[in-house]
Amino acid sequence: MESLKKQVYEANMQLPQHGLVVFTWGNVSAVDREKGLVVIKPSGVDYAEMKPEDMVVVDLEGNRVEGDLNPSSDTPTHCYLYRSFPGIGGIVHTHSRWATIWAQAGRGIPAYGTTHGDYFYGTIPCTRAMTPEEIREAYEKNTGAVIAETFSGMDPTTIPAVLVKSHGPFAWGKDCMEAVHNAVVLEELAMMAWHTEAIANPAPPMPQELLDKHFLRKHGANAYYGQKK
Amino acid sequence: MESLKKQVYEANMQLPQHGLVVFTWGNVSAVDREKGLVVIKPSGVDYAEMKPEDMVVVDLEGNRVEGDLNPSSDTPTHCYLYRSFPGIGGIVHTHSRWATIWAQAGRGIPAYGTTHGDYFYGTIPCTRAMTPEEIREAYEKNTGAVIAETFSGMDPTTIPAVLVKSHGPFAWGKDCMEAVHNAVVLEELAMMAWHTEAIANPAPPMPQELLDKHFLRKHGANAYYGQKK
Amino acid sequence: MESLKKQVYEANMQLPQHGLVVFTWGNVSAVDREKGLVVIKPSGVDYAEMKPEDMVVVDLEGNRVEGDLNPSSDTPTHCYLYRSFPGIGGIVHTHSRWATIWAQAGRGIPAYGTTHGDYFYGTIPCTRAMTPEEIREAYEKNTGAVIAETFSGMDPTTIPAVLVKSHGPFAWGKDCMEAVHNAVVLEELAMMAWHTEAIANPAPPMPQELLDKHFLRKHGANAYYGQKK
Amino acid sequence: MESLKKQVYEANMQLPQHGLVVFTWGNVSAVDREKGLVVIKPSGVDYAEMKPEDMVVVDLEGNRVEGDLNPSSDTPTHCYLYRSFPGIGGIVHTHSRWATIWAQAGRGIPAYGTTHGDYFYGTIPCTRAMTPEEIREAYEKNTGAVIAETFSGMDPTTIPAVLVKSHGPFAWGKDCMEAVHNAVVLEELAMMAWHTEAIANPAPPMPQELLDKHFLRKHGANAYYGQKK
Repeated sequence: MESLKKQVYEANMQLPQHGLVVFTWGNVSAVDREKGLVVIKPSGVDYAEMKPEDMVVVDLEGNRVEGDLNPSSDTPTHCYLYRSFPGIGGIVHTHSRWATIWAQAGRGIPAYGTTHGDYFYGTIPCTRAMTPEEIREAYEKNTGAVIAETFSGMDPTTIPAVLVKSHGPFAWGKDCMEAVHNAVVLEELAMMAWHTEAIANPAPPMPQELLDKHFLRKHGANAYYGQKK
Repeated sequence: MESLKKQVYEANMQLPQHGLVVFTWGNVSAVDREKGLVVIKPSGVDYAEMKPEDMVVVDLEGNRVEGDLNPSSDTPTHCYLYRSFPGIGGIVHTHSRWATIWAQAGRGIPAYGTTHGDYFYGTIPCTRAMTPEEIREAYEKNTGAVIAETFSGMDPTTIPAVLVKSHGPFAWGKDCMEAVHNAVVLEELAMMAWHTEAIANPAPPMPQELLDKHFLRKHGANAYYGQKK
Repeated sequence: MESLKKQVYEANMQLPQHGLVVFTWGNVSAVDREKGLVVIKPSGVDYAEMKPEDMVVVDLEGNRVEGDLNPSSDTPTHCYLYRSFPGIGGIVHTHSRWATIWAQAGRGIPAYGTTHGDYFYGTIPCTRAMTPEEIREAYEKNTGAVIAETFSGMDPTTIPAVLVKSHGPFAWGKDCMEAVHNAVVLEELAMMAWHTEAIANPAPPMPQELLDKHFLRKHGANAYYGQKK
Repeated sequence: MESLKKQVYEANMQLPQHGLVVFTWGNVSAVDREKGLVVIKPSGVDYAEMKPEDMVVVDLEGNRVEGDLNPSSDTPTHCYLYRSFPGIGGIVHTHSRWATIWAQAGRGIPAYGTTHGDYFYGTIPCTRAMTPEEIREAYEKNTGAVIAETFSGMDPTTIPAVLVKSHGPFAWGKDCMEAVHNAVVLEELAMMAWHTEAIANPAPPMPQELLDKHFLRKHGANAYYGQKK
């Protein structure tokens, strides 16, 4: 687990570098699917003082397996998502400004351009409001449940982020580095979509063909962007 | 008082680091409740040239007790708040952009999301306009009085900031470091609330249960965020 | 070609320095008109790891002539523009925020002030939407075609940028350094025009005389801005 | 003149440090009232390469007296203002974003708060549009004339900046360092006023008593802000 702890540490450290977090408002985790273990940032620790060995290891139910510190208070949400979305390997939660603005407005982010289509194959959805009961008990676990409900019938690997209403974004990827990458992209898209609407309301939807072209030239069997791997 | 002067100096120096002040537009103070003394930034001194020993010591009525420089012109406001709010230990005043925008608009900042709820237990209020009489004589003291009036019947430790109409924000905390922390949070909240309203007008209020959950998981007897102290 | 590769490399490296790109979202090329060859950034390579020798050389039809890496996936667009606009020597494509916002809104950027007039002699146009057929086959080449169509009857050297609808900006110049310069200017103009409209809708058009004055004091035979060259 | 050239050079170098200019889009000058000479930035020279000895000396009519480089193309505007406003010692012209947005919208910046009142004793005015004749001949000189016309009956030392319609801001002060200081303040005010209007339209005007209090506690015989000089 040491190399995964190092990777999760480094992914966490990228959050302030990309301007996605203020103080300790964010956390990254990764899952080792073979061992069924999750590595996650400790709760409320300063980025400036955090070390790789501070990362906490929990099982997929969120029980601490290794580490002296408390895991992020959002751990039950991460675990719920790993159980629900078998195709993902890393998760990021932040209160990054622009994505949080859409979450606070209770609105999904429509695909207004090819920057969106290069990463997200359609609207980035916003969850419904959680009920008083969902909030009162097992709140963090229920946050995961309402996200999973939002993606019922959708493939979370083609839309690797969500907005939790009145809260903020979660993003994911095949590993925690890709999850951070997608969180950065989400923030750009949120900023640009906000301003697109304001000068063209209703903003013109992106043609489906263009969305197909851009998503599929970067993802899947016929992708031709970048270098052959 | 030397260690408190050092702490107040360092808290002041954090203001430009967090992008909250331009030139000398801000000041931090702290109170020593046992001695009944307040340490505050001198008036109009450049951050680049300021030293810990430049901090000025005044009594709770604002009379200078120690130091060669004039205390901040806002000293009577700070002192008024220390006298009115026994639960606070540090105060910050800035003209930070987003909070000042709400102050200039004469509006309190509603709780639109959990980022708000993590720190402020409800709307961050804006004072009423001051009267010509209040402005003409003892203006800075009256600024404190109108803030105290705004919080009548409210607990200032659960909503640790205010907007002074047509002016700007004051934030506070149990000490001056927490006051600066809250001033940074206030600026984030002000920025996000501004943009939330613009894409969802009227913006959906945050459910009371969610506000309770987030404030109380970080504050009070049953808090479970962060590490045990 | 080595000096042109170095110049194209350096122009590419300026994109992140000017805040115009996130990750690998941009590319710069230059043409050697005598040899009929184009030097362009490789596809999907990190700016931090890119070296001058990674630049790819293609002919004006986009066939790779030199280099081990795939050229930018936007190469057919660059080549189409070099074939259509004989007066240009360098091209930049980015997804810079403010220009992309206008592209996503499907609107050209009107000339609202002398900053615009100093560089662009009129509205910076936005292309029409591409048809499903244009998107399905030879998409990148057709992107060039729709740009060329947008400039039919216009001189691309006096309006050295375009917005591709639902996509983002292309800018150009007499060489690739000037193309980057124009891309930076475009971003400033896009930001300022967005905010101009919002406080003065409809925003007052800039008088034609003022546009003439500013464009012509910097360009053409009677220019008097700067030092004699 | 060497010390004034050094001061003008340093004031010019502060423009990119404060984020007020892109490329070479700005210039600072200062006047030596005894000698009747003006020191000004050369036209179109990169900030990175500029040296104190590159500053150009002109007389109050704009004729070059010393220096090998062409003075800023805006020199006739600076000179006109020095002739019209005897109380000023330094002038800054930029295309800083927020002030330019107001200039492009053709609107003065109202006093919405005490940050404004601390520096500007009322609305920062915007000039009328210049006529085709004023633009065609002696454009830069006429830019000075239309600014002077805008201040007829007003004291330019109490409102040390103007917006030239469809162009951008000029700011001034008792010397060139104060002029730069005021240009930075202007940019802050322009940004905050823009956003104030958007959430409170019509935004509440600042009470005259508050404007008086803030301007007069920093300026004039009864000022009590800062340290005794």
